Amino acid sequence: MDTSCIFCKIASGAIPATFLHEDDAVVAFGDLNPQAPHHVLIIPREHVVSLASATDGHTEVLGRLLRVAAEIAERLGVTDSGYRTVINTGPDGGQSVFHLHVHLLGGRPLAWPPG
Amino acid sequence: MDTSCIFCKIASGAIPATFLHEDDAVVAFGDLNPQAPHHVLIIPREHVVSLASATDGHTEVLGRLLRVAAEIAERLGVTDSGYRTVINTGPDGGQSVFHLHVHLLGGRPLAWPPG
Repeated sequence: MDTSCIFCKIASGAIPATFLHEDDAVVAFGDLNPQAPHHVLIIPREHVVSLASATDGHTEVLGRLLRVAAEIAERLGVTDSGYRTVINTGPDGGQSVFHLHVHLLGGRPLAWPPG
Repeated sequence: MDTSCIFCKIASGAIPATFLHEDDAVVAFGDLNPQAPHHVLIIPREHVVSLASATDGHTEVLGRLLRVAAEIAERLGVTDSGYRTVINTGPDGGQSVFHLHVHLLGGRPLAWPPG
């Protein structure tokens, strides 16, 4: 845990949040600045700075992040209508919190290109 | 393999493509309609229709798709400048080929929201 990291604080419960998913390795909660009717963030509990800093040992949890995104989408009822999952890495990616997170956006058509 | 699937044909070599990455489970190649200076598609060799149809048994390969994306970004020299990885699922996601794929976009600032 990085004690200065807001997502570590959310994952540990130091900052209260309503979890849409919670297990030993992954938690999910709503984005504070939603860009779609459904906009959820899925993060590893471990403080991984970004996709670029993930290592071979993170392969399983990276897969879990995507699986949890699909599970949440199913519960939100957007599997058939569709959704987009996005990971921002570094400045050009628009990464604003330096704790790896997957954005799940659904409930409206997402345009192309993706930013 | 789905013999009517263009990405299966690319993965098997039936349709020639230049691979940016190739291993037992994953291949990567350039998007035919690039939306950024670097726009790469990373796919499983197995015909998985979408993220929504992935199962627990696909967790490892899902993680591999993201790890390969990061490895390709590193080789393309965009780790420091940053990049975005995107998976489109179903109509609202804008999925156009029904074989699971990760888009890797880099080489320019990606705007927010992501579509």
